[in-house]
Amino acid sequence: MTVTGPARPSLLTGPDLARALFAPRSIALVGASGDPVKAASRPLAYLRRDGYRGAVYAVNRRGGEIGGERAYTGLAELPEVPEHAFLMTPTAATVDTVAECGRAGVRVVTVLTGGFGESGPDGLERERRLRAAGREHGVRILGPNSLGVVNPGLGLTLTANAAFSEPDLRSGGLFVASHSGSMLGALLSRGVARGLGFARMISVGGEVDVSLGEVCAAAVDDPDVTGYLLFLESLRHADRLREFAAAAADRGKPVVAYKLGRSTAAAELAVSHTGALAGEDDVAAAFLADCGIARVHTLDGLLETLPLLRRVAPPAAAPTAERSVGVVTTTGGGAAMVVDQLGVRGVSVAPPSERTRRRLTDAGVHAEPGLIVDLTLAGTRPDVMRAALDVLTDAPEFDLVVAVVGSSARAQPELVVAPITERPPSGTPVAVFVVPEAPQALSMLAAAEVPAFRTPESCADAVAAALARRVPRVRPAPRRQEQPGVRTLDEARSYAVLREQGVPVASFDVLDVDAATGPAELRYPVAVKALSADLPHKSDAGGVVLDVAAPADVPAAAGHIREEVHRRAGVSVDRVLVQPMSTGLAEVLVGYRVDAEVGPLVLVAAGGVLAELHRDRALRTAPVDAVTAREMLTEVTGLTVLRGFRGAPHGDLDALAELVVSVSRLVERPDVVEAEINPALVGPVGQGVVAVDAVVRVACGEAGEDA
Amino acid sequence: MTVTGPARPSLLTGPDLARALFAPRSIALVGASGDPVKAASRPLAYLRRDGYRGAVYAVNRRGGEIGGERAYTGLAELPEVPEHAFLMTPTAATVDTVAECGRAGVRVVTVLTGGFGESGPDGLERERRLRAAGREHGVRILGPNSLGVVNPGLGLTLTANAAFSEPDLRSGGLFVASHSGSMLGALLSRGVARGLGFARMISVGGEVDVSLGEVCAAAVDDPDVTGYLLFLESLRHADRLREFAAAAADRGKPVVAYKLGRSTAAAELAVSHTGALAGEDDVAAAFLADCGIARVHTLDGLLETLPLLRRVAPPAAAPTAERSVGVVTTTGGGAAMVVDQLGVRGVSVAPPSERTRRRLTDAGVHAEPGLIVDLTLAGTRPDVMRAALDVLTDAPEFDLVVAVVGSSARAQPELVVAPITERPPSGTPVAVFVVPEAPQALSMLAAAEVPAFRTPESCADAVAAALARRVPRVRPAPRRQEQPGVRTLDEARSYAVLREQGVPVASFDVLDVDAATGPAELRYPVAVKALSADLPHKSDAGGVVLDVAAPADVPAAAGHIREEVHRRAGVSVDRVLVQPMSTGLAEVLVGYRVDAEVGPLVLVAAGGVLAELHRDRALRTAPVDAVTAREMLTEVTGLTVLRGFRGAPHGDLDALAELVVSVSRLVERPDVVEAEINPALVGPVGQGVVAVDAVVRVACGEAGEDA
Repeated sequence: MTVTGPARPSLLTGPDLARALFAPRSIALVGASGDPVKAASRPLAYLRRDGYRGAVYAVNRRGGEIGGERAYTGLAELPEVPEHAFLMTPTAATVDTVAECGRAGVRVVTVLTGGFGESGPDGLERERRLRAAGREHGVRILGPNSLGVVNPGLGLTLTANAAFSEPDLRSGGLFVASHSGSMLGALLSRGVARGLGFARMISVGGEVDVSLGEVCAAAVDDPDVTGYLLFLESLRHADRLREFAAAAADRGKPVVAYKLGRSTAAAELAVSHTGALAGEDDVAAAFLADCGIARVHTLDGLLETLPLLRRVAPPAAAPTAERSVGVVTTTGGGAAMVVDQLGVRGVSVAPPSERTRRRLTDAGVHAEPGLIVDLTLAGTRPDVMRAALDVLTDAPEFDLVVAVVGSSARAQPELVVAPITERPPSGTPVAVFVVPEAPQALSMLAAAEVPAFRTPESCADAVAAALARRVPRVRPAPRRQEQPGVRTLDEARSYAVLREQGVPVASFDVLDVDAATGPAELRYPVAVKALSADLPHKSDAGGVVLDVAAPADVPAAAGHIREEVHRRAGVSVDRVLVQPMSTGLAEVLVGYRVDAEVGPLVLVAAGGVLAELHRDRALRTAPVDAVTAREMLTEVTGLTVLRGFRGAPHGDLDALAELVVSVSRLVERPDVVEAEINPALVGPVGQGVVAVDAVVRVACGEAGEDA
Repeated sequence: MTVTGPARPSLLTGPDLARALFAPRSIALVGASGDPVKAASRPLAYLRRDGYRGAVYAVNRRGGEIGGERAYTGLAELPEVPEHAFLMTPTAATVDTVAECGRAGVRVVTVLTGGFGESGPDGLERERRLRAAGREHGVRILGPNSLGVVNPGLGLTLTANAAFSEPDLRSGGLFVASHSGSMLGALLSRGVARGLGFARMISVGGEVDVSLGEVCAAAVDDPDVTGYLLFLESLRHADRLREFAAAAADRGKPVVAYKLGRSTAAAELAVSHTGALAGEDDVAAAFLADCGIARVHTLDGLLETLPLLRRVAPPAAAPTAERSVGVVTTTGGGAAMVVDQLGVRGVSVAPPSERTRRRLTDAGVHAEPGLIVDLTLAGTRPDVMRAALDVLTDAPEFDLVVAVVGSSARAQPELVVAPITERPPSGTPVAVFVVPEAPQALSMLAAAEVPAFRTPESCADAVAAALARRVPRVRPAPRRQEQPGVRTLDEARSYAVLREQGVPVASFDVLDVDAATGPAELRYPVAVKALSADLPHKSDAGGVVLDVAAPADVPAAAGHIREEVHRRAGVSVDRVLVQPMSTGLAEVLVGYRVDAEVGPLVLVAAGGVLAELHRDRALRTAPVDAVTAREMLTEVTGLTVLRGFRGAPHGDLDALAELVVSVSRLVERPDVVEAEINPALVGPVGQGVVAVDAVVRVACGEAGEDA
């Protein structure tokens, strides 16, 4: 073999990339060690232990023997070009090694070493050079900081992770991808303990090149893979993740994710830990929801949710009615824990209807009246539980039924699980919470692929995630602006942009600040406001005078504004915007912003400081339809005042939802990067909404200005 | 034996009750069955299997043999008076059987049967008769709906719970008490799987007589018992629970509780399920906190928290500084999960100080800068983890250290746990989260009584509960009013009561509604308000006119109020209260109420509808001291506006805290059952607070009126 390869080949992608990663014909272990204490000794040992059939070459510049095999001193010595090189070289040598791999014709490398983007300015520079070396030499790079890839069906245990030292990995349908390498080991051991079988496991590390989304997508047509389990530290390469999620949904392969960063502390930690800029957690939530990825919030939930996702088909759009869960149990206390946890997560448990109660009685099932169907001890009889489940899964009021089984699951597992495992997987899905420690019952349920849960928390977590899941929306990749120049439009121009979208805007007039009188055609009293693109917080700068009674009073107000704004903010105001005073039942903030990672977003929040303090808001990827907009309004606690709270009049929620839809359609205006209506005033039913302040920001050099 | 016993003895209590329940010399199993399929066959079988040494008599009116033993046809036939009768009789026969037991001299019965308070009006009547029979005949009653009592050390498996069919119960220090009988089985099997040993287990059922608190207290001096684990459906017999908690704290025996009813749905369920009136969950939270009972919110947390409570000494009062947690880890991803979960629960993870970092370096420990001490792979070396823990547990900035261990806990458990288990149990407590499935490491940690956790959620749950725990406050049992007649005081009289407590109240004057002019001595403009005890919502009834400019304008306002209130609410207003208009930086609601179950409570909430919708409030049992009052203010999100939010001036939080303390001291006024200041206006620092509306309610026929 010579180091002079053919002309630089195109970069590997899709199934070709998947094959080179997960089923390479030959592997070079660069920097392999013969010292069994060192991590660099593990890949060779694992591959031999697990009988990997491809060629495996240990490379170490010192040569000699490693694990009883010849150690090659360099890639040039190898009898063939390895399809995949696993680099365990020191940080400083990594960039050169990648270049050497490229020159030798290697198309994929996995970089185990760290010390790149996460390690300050020097590391960032090394990362840039690493990426450049890959591009220049036509090498795809997994990592850095990747603990490797595993394909149990082939015995490909190409990893330095100590967790794989046990040979108990079962082959199955699960594709596990993780930003954190060490979590791969935890997911492995916890999965094995639950009887899960794995199709692929991959630690993507720093994602300088190959991203988590890309690697998942590359295997999406692989018949070995039936579902995906993701451990995410942040939302890097969101567009790739979205493409993957759409492809997985098309093929009916569910995706469950645990994402770090729910609390601010952890979000900061994710930054320092991975070098990636963690997005705000609710942006991530909106994005994952939009992708049809079920997000769970417990570690047990991550491992236990996929079987439920297989049975709960996601609707294409937000459902118009709240989805309801029925609960049947042999133990009141155990069921109450699940009901409690579902309630905390906003999932409503519904009582059986009168008709369902009658059908239960007709089927010989006795249950006390109440929210849940408590069979008590009778429920341990398989015929009783079977009859109850038959009736409940046939009842139109339930979208999902949770069966809670008590101590009998331990004493008589076969009797208890039979009525559940023997059910066809179609129809209203049934989730099982097993209250006692009952490994045998859980194994039997797992073997039958019945969604079963060890704790009330993981059960509720999974049910909430499954019911919230939607079919992913098809969206273009978000536009990006590498160095966005952004310009703020003044209030009048902002209104113009919004009005074009169909947003109802308060009537107004623009006057020269020296005008002799106010506009006669407006309804008085009016508000007089400084009109300037340079004054984002005009109230704070003294730029607003309210309740101006008559046209003759406008000049004084305008003069006052000019003086105050100049004094407080140093801004010269030439014009004022005059607008009739209005009131509404509530003030609402509606925002729009193009996020660099996930694209356009639309937000609704109650007005005022308190709403902000409570983070009382609903966020979606834009655009949204009317049903989704209504769903958003329901999520904002403060907007309860518009739903007849304490006898107050109902607000015009239809008009508000329409306004949200209109704002979300700013996606049709590629120049608009941000918009905020704050506030929109919501009138009583039938009386509409109106924007009474707004600001729009546009990318420089594009349209919008003349709108 | 004759059925004519001695004169009715006094009721068993305290250690006597505990002995009769948990170590009776003789037991009658009334209604025992020989059919092994029936629950009524279990107690005899269990007692024989476990070698209980006391006398055990099966009683069944059909006589014959049960399990190869003689079945007595009635209590009268027994050779001695049994110390404890376990009743498995049908519901309808239970009351008579209790009476029969009493006549025979039995002092304690456990009632397995249900069909009492939880079963509608008939059941309530049966429950009343059951209670009366016990009192009349000197019999203490455990239950109804009790699955029984267990004392593994003696082989006393006096229960019909199928969960005890496995003979794997280990004796130990844990006292488990549960409202739910079926949960006892789940706690048993889950505890056994964790290597827990049990001192006593008891299912208290409907608590018609013996309450959960009483039975726990009865065993508090038992040296077998080292800690308590409670599963609560509601707060019945709160005074007993409080007494018990104080006694347990005195003896250094920690108490952990899981209480149902966090969500509204589950609270409703608890009502229908047990027949008890479930208190509002935040009342329960305030009460449990006040008792020094650590409340957890996960099932795993319930089983895993006690070892941590043993190491985290509760402070006597609310600490003045936020308590901080340090995190050391071998796996960044695993640690980030714990940090995230702690953050969600409001527990702050702090980075090591500069000094601590230097000490780590001096000790040869390398850790990247950041929030946590990430040892990466080096942390799997015992000397490195040991050195890191030495430095961190010695650092003054940490109240608790969480050690997160990765895959090595599975591969090399002895190496990984050694630096943790060998530490003395004193000093800064260390909690361990084990990221992989690692039963061996967990067993070793459990054997060493090191607090160790299986999931990031249970770890954070336990840490939050342990850090929130306080020494219980000594309080008198709350006063109760069986049929409280309650009277509302008008605003002026309400002010008088509050002013006596030291609450700053707005100046005001009271006028006849026909007065010719407003009071001259007040600052104008003023608010004019209807003064009537019959008008709780005076604004809604048109009873308030704001911004009245001068004394001469007062009569018109008063007249308007008289008319409006009469028209809208049908109430005749004779007098008005006149009060200068005031403003503040924020409006705050401060409330006081004597809860029937838990006694006096004090509440702080931000003013306005939004705060109410968000349930943005802090609740404590009253009275509170200034430190606790300040802590309450911190908990109310809306009051962030008083802490210089966005450059706004700081509010006078000291004065507000003082006002809260004063209101909470209404406990000194036994006639006051409720008080609400809504709102108090909070001025800038140094400018105090003032109540500008208030209502006080007093028990009838007592003081207050003339205050």
